[in-house]
Amino acid sequence: MDILITGFEPFDGDTVNPSWEVAQALDGRVIGIGRVRACRLPVTFRDAPQRLAEALAQGRPELVIALGQASGRSEISIERVAVNLIDARIPDNAGDRPHDARVVALAPDAYFSTLPVKAMRDGLRAAGYPAGLSLTAGAFVCNQLFFELQHRLAGRGVRGGFIHLPALPEQAARAPGGLPSMGLAAQIDAIALAVAIAMGEVQVARGADEGAPTG
Amino acid sequence: MDILITGFEPFDGDTVNPSWEVAQALDGRVIGIGRVRACRLPVTFRDAPQRLAEALAQGRPELVIALGQASGRSEISIERVAVNLIDARIPDNAGDRPHDARVVALAPDAYFSTLPVKAMRDGLRAAGYPAGLSLTAGAFVCNQLFFELQHRLAGRGVRGGFIHLPALPEQAARAPGGLPSMGLAAQIDAIALAVAIAMGEVQVARGADEGAPTG
Amino acid sequence: MDILITGFEPFDGDTVNPSWEVAQALDGRVIGIGRVRACRLPVTFRDAPQRLAEALAQGRPELVIALGQASGRSEISIERVAVNLIDARIPDNAGDRPHDARVVALAPDAYFSTLPVKAMRDGLRAAGYPAGLSLTAGAFVCNQLFFELQHRLAGRGVRGGFIHLPALPEQAARAPGGLPSMGLAAQIDAIALAVAIAMGEVQVARGADEGAPTG
Amino acid sequence: MDILITGFEPFDGDTVNPSWEVAQALDGRVIGIGRVRACRLPVTFRDAPQRLAEALAQGRPELVIALGQASGRSEISIERVAVNLIDARIPDNAGDRPHDARVVALAPDAYFSTLPVKAMRDGLRAAGYPAGLSLTAGAFVCNQLFFELQHRLAGRGVRGGFIHLPALPEQAARAPGGLPSMGLAAQIDAIALAVAIAMGEVQVARGADEGAPTG
Repeated sequence: MDILITGFEPFDGDTVNPSWEVAQALDGRVIGIGRVRACRLPVTFRDAPQRLAEALAQGRPELVIALGQASGRSEISIERVAVNLIDARIPDNAGDRPHDARVVALAPDAYFSTLPVKAMRDGLRAAGYPAGLSLTAGAFVCNQLFFELQHRLAGRGVRGGFIHLPALPEQAARAPGGLPSMGLAAQIDAIALAVAIAMGEVQVARGADEGAPTG
Repeated sequence: MDILITGFEPFDGDTVNPSWEVAQALDGRVIGIGRVRACRLPVTFRDAPQRLAEALAQGRPELVIALGQASGRSEISIERVAVNLIDARIPDNAGDRPHDARVVALAPDAYFSTLPVKAMRDGLRAAGYPAGLSLTAGAFVCNQLFFELQHRLAGRGVRGGFIHLPALPEQAARAPGGLPSMGLAAQIDAIALAVAIAMGEVQVARGADEGAPTG
Repeated sequence: MDILITGFEPFDGDTVNPSWEVAQALDGRVIGIGRVRACRLPVTFRDAPQRLAEALAQGRPELVIALGQASGRSEISIERVAVNLIDARIPDNAGDRPHDARVVALAPDAYFSTLPVKAMRDGLRAAGYPAGLSLTAGAFVCNQLFFELQHRLAGRGVRGGFIHLPALPEQAARAPGGLPSMGLAAQIDAIALAVAIAMGEVQVARGADEGAPTG
Repeated sequence: MDILITGFEPFDGDTVNPSWEVAQALDGRVIGIGRVRACRLPVTFRDAPQRLAEALAQGRPELVIALGQASGRSEISIERVAVNLIDARIPDNAGDRPHDARVVALAPDAYFSTLPVKAMRDGLRAAGYPAGLSLTAGAFVCNQLFFELQHRLAGRGVRGGFIHLPALPEQAARAPGGLPSMGLAAQIDAIALAVAIAMGEVQVARGADEGAPTG
């Protein structure tokens, strides 16, 4: 079974993005009855949606989790809702800074995540990882990608959603005023666990008889 | 050479305290020309000073670093100044909650840390650890212990100071509203590095001819 | 012209709610070509929507602004989007604490505010009032009411939206750990200005020839 | 009786400083048996101490309260301790940015405020003003001035201290990421009340027989 995990390239002048570090580290890993396929996305409003579409078409994912970086948050932050809004506070990596635009012109105002967000949060916390739910993924490329993902998965019966990650310690070490952070190893382990929890629901939805032994 | 590192027992209903976890992990470790000796302190205004006095008397430390937990801080937080004030917001582990008292009746209003605080901060940051300086260690047992330490070391020519540590991830995972955290392994490595940096100054003060080979 | 402004009763054990204080103070005030009608709402998931429906039916509002309290925010916080989600962190004033429910079963996942949110923010800031946009009104009664409002106004061509207000100074004075606040007079003036700015768009939509002299 | 209240000129590129606005507004006001004399101080390490010395010499103050601005704080913030440390994060108004210097070479490491800080905090809160105690006035010109003040008053039996004020709403309205604020009228009233509370202690110290009728 195909599990797609996307991460972003660095942006805003930074040299690293925890979302791609985590996705890359999980690439090829077998979780439950699935195998992770990682995809690196540009932080550009123009190209990120197309790159996502290609990644979706390159396999038949039954679970898609998009990752992004949220500087300032201290927890693994599981997003609940993507909004049909682009309103950039800073330029993206192509220098674009669109304001007050819709992500998809003829689409609803928002989509909810179809991940088991509370089971994921509770499972992470029980395992000792700081985790929480969030009601906004912002209005930058992260939210755009999240909205595109939910729009494309809607009606297909494929579960998907978005998780924001804290800064890495090396990023916080460079931040003059301080910044919460989480080590890369912990982020990788936490996302692997989150995927496993989400996979549980995917397997339940498929029916017990189809369930292969978990790895 | 004797390096004393103190850590506190858990308090405020918690089951773990990163300061003792870190001190314990470093116990016996050779850093530069010194060897770490760890001491566990009670979180009680009544007993912490006496326990510190005993720990100081049990060896001949040339460097003393007291560690404490500062929930809510995201960085390794190197304290600059201890104030001669006790004013507890919560009860200590003996149930005492003294207000507006001096730590030592006939002592100055404050002592500065004698650690190389900026070299430690800069060295930690350069190595990728989030670190910062702090101008207040509060008015609870941490500040009391810090003040007692500086009071006892003053005039002895022994360098000492206090470092506050972020919560551990497992503590943040239990905090309803979220809490910045830092993994234990990173905290241990960061404090080992901070000790090494401080030891450099101790060795300089001793003079190059006395310096033994570093481990 | 009828301008409806709603405010909430106190909740969570408090004795005052800035949203009702502001709405009440503006009741009957003439702003542009309109006159404000204030309505006090209960902080209960069960009754707030019905009370809103009655208030809408009691006149023919051409502009509706719902107000609520957001403890912890320091600005006049203009909400951009209402989500079709109820997930209470604390009980409402009837003791109910529903989880993971939709506000309206057969409605979209979200509605955007139809207020001129950026013109309002910019106008408030230019006049010296701290103001900002928000992408989440939470998942408590405020968001429920906001969603109900947008659902009822959708297709009617009536502009509406939601504004969160900071705590009042007297509330902050009782908060042990401190809380940002804004004085009541400033809150009243700021919301009167925000209404005037929104009215400008209502009048433009109506056509210049219909515009009555402003008061 | 002479009450000296100092405030600072604007700094860091700003055009207003609440501390001088408040001091100026209280200039000449009779509080208890005293009359306020306001003094405007430059935000320069070089000149602020000398200006303070002159202001102290120009009268015979029996109470001195220095005011300063603390952007980011939401409360009237009554400082408890001044430290003998200058370490500027930004340049002062003369372009100087000294690091790791003592305020007064041959002075103690710190002085406590001699104001009745808890009575002031409690009185402000009871009157509905957000107020709190602070254990650090930073290491910029505010702390320098506070330290100079306590150093000069020590041994004279004159009570003095420092209070940090939140930003004004107009300053918060210009801050891109938001900033807690407090209206000027509330700040003036709060400081007048704080002075009255402090005067109570001054009068007690003088003895009841000396007490003149209050204004």
